[in-house]
Amino acid sequence: MNTNTFDLSQYLQERARWVDEALNRYLPGEQERPQQLHRAMRYSALSGGKRLRPILVLAGAEAVGGEAHLVMPTACAIECIHTFSLIHDDLPAIDNDTLRRGRPTCHVQFGEATAILAGDALFASAFELIARNAETVPAERVVQVLQIVAEASGTRGMVGGQMVDIESEGKAVDADTLEYIHRHKTAALLRASVLAGAVLAGAQPWQRDALSHYGECVGLAFQIADDLLNVLGDPRKMGKAVGTDAARGKATYPALFGVEASRQRAHDLVQEAIGALADFGAEAEPLRAIAHLVVEREG
Amino acid sequence: MNTNTFDLSQYLQERARWVDEALNRYLPGEQERPQQLHRAMRYSALSGGKRLRPILVLAGAEAVGGEAHLVMPTACAIECIHTFSLIHDDLPAIDNDTLRRGRPTCHVQFGEATAILAGDALFASAFELIARNAETVPAERVVQVLQIVAEASGTRGMVGGQMVDIESEGKAVDADTLEYIHRHKTAALLRASVLAGAVLAGAQPWQRDALSHYGECVGLAFQIADDLLNVLGDPRKMGKAVGTDAARGKATYPALFGVEASRQRAHDLVQEAIGALADFGAEAEPLRAIAHLVVEREG
Repeated sequence: MNTNTFDLSQYLQERARWVDEALNRYLPGEQERPQQLHRAMRYSALSGGKRLRPILVLAGAEAVGGEAHLVMPTACAIECIHTFSLIHDDLPAIDNDTLRRGRPTCHVQFGEATAILAGDALFASAFELIARNAETVPAERVVQVLQIVAEASGTRGMVGGQMVDIESEGKAVDADTLEYIHRHKTAALLRASVLAGAVLAGAQPWQRDALSHYGECVGLAFQIADDLLNVLGDPRKMGKAVGTDAARGKATYPALFGVEASRQRAHDLVQEAIGALADFGAEAEPLRAIAHLVVEREG
Repeated sequence: MNTNTFDLSQYLQERARWVDEALNRYLPGEQERPQQLHRAMRYSALSGGKRLRPILVLAGAEAVGGEAHLVMPTACAIECIHTFSLIHDDLPAIDNDTLRRGRPTCHVQFGEATAILAGDALFASAFELIARNAETVPAERVVQVLQIVAEASGTRGMVGGQMVDIESEGKAVDADTLEYIHRHKTAALLRASVLAGAVLAGAQPWQRDALSHYGECVGLAFQIADDLLNVLGDPRKMGKAVGTDAARGKATYPALFGVEASRQRAHDLVQEAIGALADFGAEAEPLRAIAHLVVEREG
């Protein structure tokens, strides 16, 4: 690891706690009507994920000299979008997954209708939270972030990638299609996370470009690492089943290029991500350390 | 009708055409990847609805002296949200409807996975379009509209109302719960439509308050009229089945209060809506005429 004196583990733990506390505060309470919907939203959003995307929002702000707490509503917004996408992807009509973060998936726990609506409601909450960020950040920056995050979530981002992923199940997939899926399904929202934090904190154009490049590389490396974990991982550490991609005939990097080439590509992408931060100083150390972590994680 | 020389029919036709043209331009093309997702989005969004919500956005802007074309992205955004909600509500796990605007519903035509994702993608597109409105309107106003529209869509608005509607199926529902469902499921987005247009056009606080009151009344009247049409309507004029609410044990106004009391309540709400516009001049004539239309429509 290239982190020197920087303690990544402490950094991540502290910020994950901040995010958990803020999400708990922002999400509607289980006493408030409609209670069942709020239970489902909170069940899925407060289930102890790693909070990688919101931490990237905070780290993106910090990398350009901003204050993490000022971008917390947007950090939580992106976690809501991530959670919404997991709930809908797990539905019987899509991936039909029953286990997520070591617990029954939302539709198993609350029924399919509630799960669909809980996903929709979390997506709406995300945009309420972005609007809320205008309390601490100029409206012009908030509108730019709205554009970045909405595009990264929709048909030109996450949802578009998920669609091509489903269409490709059980089919022979070429490298271009696999790249399309990874870039849209996973990398788009990770890139938007680091970029959103930086834009809210007043990034210069060169900083935006560099962090966009960083985010894209880390996003692709993350998805390749995810594909590798699905082949090689320990289900106890991951809180979900392994081997499911192959069973479903999913397009994955190791299926197309093999395990060793996949590892190499992930490591090359991490180097490229860190190279994109060459003109940043110590304030980008968290982003550098996170880039390494993405391919070294066990779950 | 209180429309004097104002020609509502021409006004609605013209604006519905503007909205159709703009939506066609804004929505991603069927040649663009992922094609099937874009086909499903366009199939549902460009299926010839009345465009009541986007027209309310335009009329809300005009009522405070604004220019309809400047708020077109937000008008189309709200139509995308309405379409998204119809697609998800029609799903087998929710209302299991097979016919909508005289055609097979999205999941019947494209499959359930594509329908879920097309709804999600339209919801994301809505927020891209709101961001786009910052090209012609100050960012501060766009952020206010973002807040209004996101809240009206989510758990404290449309999705929350849909959740309570589902929970109430087959149960004895009291007047408070029925009011909750109508206010959230239907009135919230109609109110947000007129308010969004007005805010983008620079409404004064008294104008916002008056139009908010107008929108709430028109929204409630619209849902009561919808309930009445489901009992008494002509399925050929409506493009969907009738009698479905009673068959499902849905909570409706006529089921709780009877047909005559429902008609009276809808007409009282229309009068209240028009009363809220007392301090507006001729520029609010479209809104007055729309309020009448809402309870007089046949589909």
